[in-house]
Amino acid sequence: MRAARYYGKEDIRVEEIEEPVCKPGQIKIKPAFVGICGTDLHEYLGGPNFAPVKPHAVTKETLPVTFGHEFSGTVIEVGEGVTGFEIGQKASIQPTIYDGTCPACHRGLENICYNGGFVGLSGWGGGLSDAVTVPANYVLPLPDNVPLDIGALVEPLSVGWHAVSQSPLKKDSNVLILGGGPIGISVILALRARGCGYIIVSELSSSRQRFARHFGASHIIDPTKETDFVKQIRSLAGGEGVDIVFDCAGVAVGLEAACQSIKARGTVVNVAIWEKAIPFQPNDLVFKEGKYVACLGYVQQDFIDVIKAISSGAMKPGDMITRKIALENVVEDGIKTLISDKDNHVKILVEI
Amino acid sequence: MRAARYYGKEDIRVEEIEEPVCKPGQIKIKPAFVGICGTDLHEYLGGPNFAPVKPHAVTKETLPVTFGHEFSGTVIEVGEGVTGFEIGQKASIQPTIYDGTCPACHRGLENICYNGGFVGLSGWGGGLSDAVTVPANYVLPLPDNVPLDIGALVEPLSVGWHAVSQSPLKKDSNVLILGGGPIGISVILALRARGCGYIIVSELSSSRQRFARHFGASHIIDPTKETDFVKQIRSLAGGEGVDIVFDCAGVAVGLEAACQSIKARGTVVNVAIWEKAIPFQPNDLVFKEGKYVACLGYVQQDFIDVIKAISSGAMKPGDMITRKIALENVVEDGIKTLISDKDNHVKILVEI
Ligand SMILES: [Zn+2]
Ligand SMILES: [Zn+2]
Repeated sequence: MRAARYYGKEDIRVEEIEEPVCKPGQIKIKPAFVGICGTDLHEYLGGPNFAPVKPHAVTKETLPVTFGHEFSGTVIEVGEGVTGFEIGQKASIQPTIYDGTCPACHRGLENICYNGGFVGLSGWGGGLSDAVTVPANYVLPLPDNVPLDIGALVEPLSVGWHAVSQSPLKKDSNVLILGGGPIGISVILALRARGCGYIIVSELSSSRQRFARHFGASHIIDPTKETDFVKQIRSLAGGEGVDIVFDCAGVAVGLEAACQSIKARGTVVNVAIWEKAIPFQPNDLVFKEGKYVACLGYVQQDFIDVIKAISSGAMKPGDMITRKIALENVVEDGIKTLISDKDNHVKILVEI
Repeated sequence: MRAARYYGKEDIRVEEIEEPVCKPGQIKIKPAFVGICGTDLHEYLGGPNFAPVKPHAVTKETLPVTFGHEFSGTVIEVGEGVTGFEIGQKASIQPTIYDGTCPACHRGLENICYNGGFVGLSGWGGGLSDAVTVPANYVLPLPDNVPLDIGALVEPLSVGWHAVSQSPLKKDSNVLILGGGPIGISVILALRARGCGYIIVSELSSSRQRFARHFGASHIIDPTKETDFVKQIRSLAGGEGVDIVFDCAGVAVGLEAACQSIKARGTVVNVAIWEKAIPFQPNDLVFKEGKYVACLGYVQQDFIDVIKAISSGAMKPGDMITRKIALENVVEDGIKTLISDKDNHVKILVEI
């Protein structure tokens, strides 16, 4: 079968490999659509970071690994002992790999597993192939009214949904989102689906500003054009500041602005991964009793909630798909396009 | 009457001033005992910081101001319209000055008032005098079994109590406290009174280590003597790390250690005020979904809870008092002693 495998920096090869065997407890999926995300780009440009150079604690695999962790597909084989699935069932895959034995797993926090990883990054195959086998509980059925291309968006949407779940959102919360990229948009969509009324998005790219507005931002602010960003945020949010900031940008100046933009007892939710330590003045939070809440990925409930929100019409993420490409062209039309023209894309899907 | 007034850096004068008039809605207190705290030292050594050089938004006063914000006393006059108080009533004073009109005050967060201040720092007199008038709701009655010297400890104890209230403490939480000074001790006492079983205190001074142990620390760790501080904390706390860190030290290396010492979904509670921005790597929190919670002062419920805990015997803070001095000697025996010999003192009380 075909598989796009990552060998290291700037080295992804679409090649023929053996189809995996569906073992007891597993389900074999024929991937349908696979999103390319920032993590894939980082691995391509500067990795391996997540991809295992030493045997991964759970998968025991090393490079090369098949890529593709944001994917939907259809069930083509049901392993021994698995019930509740039929051949042909459409599904979205939660790619979280966890050991099930560490202290975090014992408390049900599979997203924080100390030995964690991802299908499509850490071994066990990936979506960018003709078939992949995963434990049955990684497979989330899609209702009839959720098509497979939308099903490939469930993973990135779950990141935003999880961040909102970790925040103290109330119906009347004012929210500021730093960064209008794919993660920022997933936060916008989650906030809208959950009834948040006022969303300011800070974003300097005019293309991303348009996307943010399209998906539900109430107000766009270009941080490079404000003489006093924090004052402007406070003014937009009724004088005192916002209840919650979602930091989807992960830059030092943004953290400072975030801490200064919240109201008394406000919360900064971090949805970014950071390259290095940055300056932080805790007093910015102290004098307001602010909170800083860090998020990582998602848990299964987020997948379930997102699928339900899409199926009910509360969330309409279809326009996030800005291009569909073929597996053979994943590097040229997918990864390289996102590197050179990222602001004009939200999600490029590989159609398998 | 006598009053110890702050004129600026290294300039506190015990002098004769006019006794204040007890206006409607106020109560006149004859201070009994007054604690000297780190804020007083900072003002003395490097101020004015909090003390108003321009008219304070609420008190309208400027330097000189009478010092002393940690104090107990007896009611000597009850202003027009005030009910529920009798002459001779023992009380502890909550010194929080707030405007009552800002957005924080509107949400009941008087400790975060955007125009806030303190009796004994921002005007309206202070404890270091023969009489002080305050709004009646600043006066917290002390039960018969709480003596006046202990009553002067209620303010610093409320700082620790409030920090614990802002934390997600459960009965089986493992806790690390950074810093065994007066604030660290107030956190220890609050934790013990609230049933926390395992408390590690990180402190390098051997005198403060002894105090911490005396007030209930389960384990003392000297951060300068550990080759791998974080590893040692994890090992002490059962392998994964602690549930909560209370940072009462406010130093960069401590913040980093705090973020690395918590377990998955753990919390770092900041009880310190910081001098400047410090390096911070959000990933230390991200990969554990950690929280950083900033605290400021206390609210009235904390005073009520602390007085109740002392009265019931759940909290025994008496040994925090390491010296009692006379008002005339507040600088020589109080402030200068704390500057030169701080590790051997927890609370020096001025007896009025
Ligand atoms: Zn685990
Ligand atoms: Zn106020």
